[in-house]
Amino acid sequence: MGHTEERRKFRAVLAGTRCLSPASVYDPLSARIAESVGFEIGMLAGSVASHTTLAAPDLIVLTLTEFAGQIRRIKRASRLPLLVDADHGYGNALNVMRTVWELDHAGVAAMSIEDPVLPQRFGQADAAEELVSTAEMVGKLRAAVEARGGSNVVIAGRTAALRIEGIEGTVARVKAYAATGVDAIFVVGLETLAQLEAIRAAAQLPVIIGSAPASLQREDLAARGARVLLQGHQPVAAAVKALRECYEHLHRGGSPAELKDRIASAQEMDRLTGAAEHKRWQREFLR
Amino acid sequence: MGHTEERRKFRAVLAGTRCLSPASVYDPLSARIAESVGFEIGMLAGSVASHTTLAAPDLIVLTLTEFAGQIRRIKRASRLPLLVDADHGYGNALNVMRTVWELDHAGVAAMSIEDPVLPQRFGQADAAEELVSTAEMVGKLRAAVEARGGSNVVIAGRTAALRIEGIEGTVARVKAYAATGVDAIFVVGLETLAQLEAIRAAAQLPVIIGSAPASLQREDLAARGARVLLQGHQPVAAAVKALRECYEHLHRGGSPAELKDRIASAQEMDRLTGAAEHKRWQREFLR
Amino acid sequence: MGHTEERRKFRAVLAGTRCLSPASVYDPLSARIAESVGFEIGMLAGSVASHTTLAAPDLIVLTLTEFAGQIRRIKRASRLPLLVDADHGYGNALNVMRTVWELDHAGVAAMSIEDPVLPQRFGQADAAEELVSTAEMVGKLRAAVEARGGSNVVIAGRTAALRIEGIEGTVARVKAYAATGVDAIFVVGLETLAQLEAIRAAAQLPVIIGSAPASLQREDLAARGARVLLQGHQPVAAAVKALRECYEHLHRGGSPAELKDRIASAQEMDRLTGAAEHKRWQREFLR
Amino acid sequence: MGHTEERRKFRAVLAGTRCLSPASVYDPLSARIAESVGFEIGMLAGSVASHTTLAAPDLIVLTLTEFAGQIRRIKRASRLPLLVDADHGYGNALNVMRTVWELDHAGVAAMSIEDPVLPQRFGQADAAEELVSTAEMVGKLRAAVEARGGSNVVIAGRTAALRIEGIEGTVARVKAYAATGVDAIFVVGLETLAQLEAIRAAAQLPVIIGSAPASLQREDLAARGARVLLQGHQPVAAAVKALRECYEHLHRGGSPAELKDRIASAQEMDRLTGAAEHKRWQREFLR
Repeated sequence: MGHTEERRKFRAVLAGTRCLSPASVYDPLSARIAESVGFEIGMLAGSVASHTTLAAPDLIVLTLTEFAGQIRRIKRASRLPLLVDADHGYGNALNVMRTVWELDHAGVAAMSIEDPVLPQRFGQADAAEELVSTAEMVGKLRAAVEARGGSNVVIAGRTAALRIEGIEGTVARVKAYAATGVDAIFVVGLETLAQLEAIRAAAQLPVIIGSAPASLQREDLAARGARVLLQGHQPVAAAVKALRECYEHLHRGGSPAELKDRIASAQEMDRLTGAAEHKRWQREFLR
Repeated sequence: MGHTEERRKFRAVLAGTRCLSPASVYDPLSARIAESVGFEIGMLAGSVASHTTLAAPDLIVLTLTEFAGQIRRIKRASRLPLLVDADHGYGNALNVMRTVWELDHAGVAAMSIEDPVLPQRFGQADAAEELVSTAEMVGKLRAAVEARGGSNVVIAGRTAALRIEGIEGTVARVKAYAATGVDAIFVVGLETLAQLEAIRAAAQLPVIIGSAPASLQREDLAARGARVLLQGHQPVAAAVKALRECYEHLHRGGSPAELKDRIASAQEMDRLTGAAEHKRWQREFLR
Repeated sequence: MGHTEERRKFRAVLAGTRCLSPASVYDPLSARIAESVGFEIGMLAGSVASHTTLAAPDLIVLTLTEFAGQIRRIKRASRLPLLVDADHGYGNALNVMRTVWELDHAGVAAMSIEDPVLPQRFGQADAAEELVSTAEMVGKLRAAVEARGGSNVVIAGRTAALRIEGIEGTVARVKAYAATGVDAIFVVGLETLAQLEAIRAAAQLPVIIGSAPASLQREDLAARGARVLLQGHQPVAAAVKALRECYEHLHRGGSPAELKDRIASAQEMDRLTGAAEHKRWQREFLR
Repeated sequence: MGHTEERRKFRAVLAGTRCLSPASVYDPLSARIAESVGFEIGMLAGSVASHTTLAAPDLIVLTLTEFAGQIRRIKRASRLPLLVDADHGYGNALNVMRTVWELDHAGVAAMSIEDPVLPQRFGQADAAEELVSTAEMVGKLRAAVEARGGSNVVIAGRTAALRIEGIEGTVARVKAYAATGVDAIFVVGLETLAQLEAIRAAAQLPVIIGSAPASLQREDLAARGARVLLQGHQPVAAAVKALRECYEHLHRGGSPAELKDRIASAQEMDRLTGAAEHKRWQREFLR
């Protein structure tokens, strides 16, 4: 039945007064677990998608199709409204349009398109971040809004301008981005509440924050228009650590039985994989 | 350069005198970790593939294409020789042929085709296991061998007969399966060394053991022709437990910083995702 | 958004008084052409999908995922309400559920699930058609209806019983199938109007006819509840013939220029590929 | 196994003295037909891949994954050594590496990477072609050669410099491209034999010609190092014309029977889809 309801929930978060942190998810099981723990929204970052589907670093080597495929696998298994970071939209404004169509179809609740030059430009210094021009980014966001058509999927304009152009440049960009019809502004590199206030005043839109100093309080962010606050991507790193310990134990000849306290029970695996529901279907439709 | 070398390594294990346990892997990162820990072979079980790509139980609802896609993602990222459990070959003998072509192309080192009736037959009691006839299974294995053609991918005939037909029925099946030209016999439900001896004598082929009582010693199994011994699929369950703890911590408002000891470091994530190699490529090809 | 409107159109056909023939389509371009010619509905047959995506015969060697992928490619490019023949639902009732979810997501307007034993059973004579039991088929159709949930995608129960069990057996099956909540009955092997009348009386549902003798008039079929009449799959065969002639011409050294009258013009290729629309997007979003 | 033999054949063409034209193919059936007609090599152009898998114009909106998927479908069905035009390698030099890995795995015999700025740059005039710098292109080709590793897949450096920088600029680029270790130079916009002579002298490599005036003789091109000469992409346009005529006939109520002379026979469809071979497998493995 489509993803309309999940998008409505995500829009309710944007229209609300709280500032929520999404669960950082990356595959069907992680999304199921996050949902069962009670998270209201989830997020798939481009970096995490590269790590988990390619075992590659965050260098824009993942294709749109691979990203959409992973999202599809997640959304098949979970009703968690999902925000995804669609990087730069995988090319120019026409590629942005395909990005919107593909991710809309794959079932995201919200996606962000960002303004850094991506992938790394020939000759660009490693550490140097560069942004596309405001005009180019506006073209991309307008293309995204046109591509969305009648879908209620959320589109956020994401900017890395704070670190590069300061608050003045950021405010100018945010005004221009907001005028394209996007639903939210996604900002990375935020350091102060004053910056957030300036961005909110410029955009008149809900704000998604890529990261914030631990010193900033969630309620202060919420009071200034922040509706979503990312907190990093610990879950995949937690899985990696657990996997390494498990493989090391077994590789040095440790017994499987000794792992009992460190692994999910068969009951939990059954719950996560919908075993009871499938048993009901077997009884109802295979007898 | 293809997967010839990995298949050679897997064949060397079958031709050797040791009995190895594979790392149970399920995605690119888990395979990378298992490889870095030192495992010589890996395994993707059908059950684990259903759990991790669909969040579904092991009821043969995963398609061959989905299974091959997950294998492809794993093999892109890892050189670990991979044994996969290809269930019943996804249909009749013609489907088995496609299974061999697809999994060969996806890069497995070895695959097993098994003899239970799958998916669950209409009217079949939940607990009741049934086997296809020996003639049908022989047809499937002969089809598999024909489909392999000149590839050096390993094909194992897998039987669940021990639990259903006892050792006599198993021996009869194993003889018939071995005569098709498969490279190994994969047996589940093994309980005694005497059973293994009978199977080895019947098949004159290396044996892969799906599970064995903890009381059986690895060297005793090895001395009777067992070359691979599965030990279950703890790693995915370890990841699930770690993910749940991580999500619970964050959901109740715990700080990300407090997770430091429970997650892989940035350095480890870099190692796993080949960050240094990519940096070298950036320096060499983007300057 | 999504495919609700196309499904509404397909349902209007079923609820109407005409008997339409769908365009037999198989890829994005064929669907675009059929749409531009004025067809109101299209169809992708399982046989045609095997031919065109695998170059394989209609022996159920195509996977559900491959079938859904081809449908997705077609639906990305076309708004033609699409009926697809989903064979036996790719396995048992649980596989039928996945079939419904996948094809619903891929964007079909309607799908049929059929009652022959598929793929070919071990030992089954080539020419011999066999049906699954009525009880098994009812389980599959009930599973399909449950899987559909709130989607308005159309589900048709398809039967090959006429050739095997005659009209009496067919009527009994049709009654049972109709009671599951499917939206239409799809019948192959129809020979007389009397058969159609009996089927219509039994089902009280719109009828889709797989093929009919040329002697039966469309209006007579329509008057007896037939809403869709397949006419075979000539288009792919027309493309094959044109391709062979074109390749033969070029292979014997004929000049490309001489093909001018036998190929679509650059203008037509532009129209089919939406060149003007893309130019508008380039002007609007890349300037 | 794999595609080594086909690559050997393609390399033999490059090392020979003839100048061959490939069959322009685009899906499994077209490749099968071209092979049966006798073509020694085939080609999948980026433009044709966009047309046939997306019904979109040649504006680099197709993803690498979609391109590789279509190639995989073609190569599953055909042993025709396949040259593909991999556009600009889908991004920067790192994306070129992934392009080589993916297309190598998908089974191409040869691929070209080209030097225009792609996709269309923001602000770039529609008609204006731009090239990346020689240094950037050299980085991409060196990355391609490194990515190839031990595979014998052919890599061609493709340049559009003739139209933009004239023969002098082209010669300078060709020298630089040849020095990266690519196996061939692919040139578009060729107008004279003198240009070809200059390119051949600069590269000391076999030349692939994207198009040439009809006035240039094939033997004169061959004598100057041209080994492959594209002739356009008529086959898909021939199929489009045949499809339109077929749909129009049926849509205006014409009978299917009247199409008999315009469509491939059932026997031809059987030959193309390997019906006899599958029947043999059914007899051998399902009895």
